Amino acid sequence: MEPDLAFAVWTGERQQRIEHVLDRSLAGVAGAPRALVEAMRYAVLGGGKRVRPLLAYAAGELADADPAIVDAPAAAVEMIHAYSLVHDDLPCMDDDVLRRGKPTCHVAFGEAMALLAGDALQAQAFAVLQSAPLPDPRAASLLLAEAAGASGMAGGQAIDLLHVGKAMSTAELENMHLRKTGALIRGAIRLGAACGNPVDAAALDRYARATGLAFQVVDDVLDVEGSSASLGKTAGKDAAQNKPTYVTLLGLAEAKRHAESLREEARGALAAFGPRARRLMEITDWIARRSA
Amino acid sequence: MEPDLAFAVWTGERQQRIEHVLDRSLAGVAGAPRALVEAMRYAVLGGGKRVRPLLAYAAGELADADPAIVDAPAAAVEMIHAYSLVHDDLPCMDDDVLRRGKPTCHVAFGEAMALLAGDALQAQAFAVLQSAPLPDPRAASLLLAEAAGASGMAGGQAIDLLHVGKAMSTAELENMHLRKTGALIRGAIRLGAACGNPVDAAALDRYARATGLAFQVVDDVLDVEGSSASLGKTAGKDAAQNKPTYVTLLGLAEAKRHAESLREEARGALAAFGPRARRLMEITDWIARRSA
Repeated sequence: MEPDLAFAVWTGERQQRIEHVLDRSLAGVAGAPRALVEAMRYAVLGGGKRVRPLLAYAAGELADADPAIVDAPAAAVEMIHAYSLVHDDLPCMDDDVLRRGKPTCHVAFGEAMALLAGDALQAQAFAVLQSAPLPDPRAASLLLAEAAGASGMAGGQAIDLLHVGKAMSTAELENMHLRKTGALIRGAIRLGAACGNPVDAAALDRYARATGLAFQVVDDVLDVEGSSASLGKTAGKDAAQNKPTYVTLLGLAEAKRHAESLREEARGALAAFGPRARRLMEITDWIARRSA
Repeated sequence: MEPDLAFAVWTGERQQRIEHVLDRSLAGVAGAPRALVEAMRYAVLGGGKRVRPLLAYAAGELADADPAIVDAPAAAVEMIHAYSLVHDDLPCMDDDVLRRGKPTCHVAFGEAMALLAGDALQAQAFAVLQSAPLPDPRAASLLLAEAAGASGMAGGQAIDLLHVGKAMSTAELENMHLRKTGALIRGAIRLGAACGNPVDAAALDRYARATGLAFQVVDDVLDVEGSSASLGKTAGKDAAQNKPTYVTLLGLAEAKRHAESLREEARGALAAFGPRARRLMEITDWIARRSA
C-alpha cells in the first residue's frame, strides 16, 4: 500500500525542512577544523529517510507545537542517529563499507576521523537541541541523554554486541531493540511533543514502543528480502554475522504478521488522540509497510 | 614547591567528594547492560587527579556557588574527559595500553565495548549536568557541548590527527591545545562559575586560557622527563609518534620558562578577584609545577 499523496507531500516538505536545519546546524560550528566538519556533514546530510525527525514533527503537530521549535529536537535526534551509524560501521563494530548508498564515513575519512566525527556529532546534538526556546530545556536535555545513553541506544548496542553468535529469546531480542532503535524513536516522539501542549504521555509511549519495534521487525525482514541497492546498505549482513533477528526467531511469514500486529497496536494507542494523530499513524503505516 | 597543607586538604576533600558523585552518577543508569556500566565505571572511577572537577569547585567558590550544585558540572566535565581518554587510547587513535596505571579500557573490555562506553559516557555527562538545579540549564548544556564538540575538544583532537608527522608552528600548537585540552578546562571553570553569582567572564576566560596551556606545556615536559610509572601512562609517547610538542618546538628549558610565564599570566588574570580566587590560583601553581 502506497501512502496517499497528502502524506507524501507532508513527508517531502519536512524532509526538505530538516535537511535545511541540519545543513545550517553543521555550517555554524565556528572554528572547527574543516576535515572534521566535512566528515560530520558527510555522515548527516543528503541521505536517509529522516524517520526520527518526521516522528518529532508529527508528535509536535499532535501537541500543537510551533514547528520552528520542533526543528531543534528533530535535528538533535537525527544527529544522534547519524553518529551512531558512523560508530556502528567502524571495523571494531559491524565493519561495514556501505551506508545510505555511499562508502561509510571511515572508508571516506579514515577510522580516527570517523570516530571523532561521531563524537563531535553527539556533542553537537545537545547544542542543537538548545538552539530553540524549548518549554523545558532541562527536561529536553535529560530526554535526549536518556535516549542516547547507557539505558537507551548505547545500551542496546552493547546488548547486541554481547549476543553475537549467541541464542536470544524473542523477549531478549525485543528488549535489545527497544533500546537500540526504540529509545531514540521514543525520544524523538517525546521531544517533539514536549515542544507543545501537554498530551497523554503513556499513550504516546505505547505508540512509540509499537512503532519502534515495527521498524525493527521490518528491518529484519528487508535484510532477508531486500537487495543492497534498494536498501543503500549491505543486505543479508545480520544473517552473515549470525545475529539473532525476528526472521531467524519467528520465520519470515510470522515476522511479517508481527509487524502488522505492532502496527495495529500503534493505531490503538493513538485512538484517543483523534485526527491530530493522523501524521503519526501515517508514519507507522509507512514504516511497517516499506520495501526499503 | 609543594602546595601548602590547607590546599592539600581542600584538594583531597574535593577529590573524595567528586569520586562519590561520579560513583553515584554511574550507579544509577537504570536498565543499562552490566558489562557496559562496568566499562564506564572502569574508565571514570578510581584514578586521575580530577583537575577539571577541582577547577569547577574552585570557580564555584569564586562565584559563591553552592557546592551541591557544582557537583553536577564537576562530574559532567570529568565524564567528558574520561570518555575522551577511552576513545583516544583506541587502536585507531593513539593505540595506548596503559592509562592511570591500569590497562586501557579497550584492553580490559574489548574495542567495541570501549567505544560504546565512551559514547554512553558522553550522553551520561549531559544527563548528570542536569542532575542539579542549575541557574540556567540551557546555557549550561550549550557550554558543555561547545567544550566537548567540534570547535572544542573533539576539534582539537582532529587537529592533532591531521598533524601527526607534520611540522607545526608554536601558534598552531597553541591553537590545537586550546581546543584539545583547553576547551574542557575552560568549560569546567565557566560551568563552575555559572552555578553562582555573575563574575567577570573575560578575566576568568584569560585565567582558563593560561592555565589550560600551562597544563599542556608541563604535560609535554613530563612526557620527556617523567617515567611511565610516575605518570601512570606511557612516557616518551609523543616523541615516539613524532608529534609536535612544546619541548620539540621550544626546547626543554624554554618550555619550562613558558610554563612559568603562563602561570604568571593566570595570576594576573585573577588579581582583580582578590582572595576569593585563592583556590583557582593554587590549582594553577600545582598544575604548572607538578612532577606527575
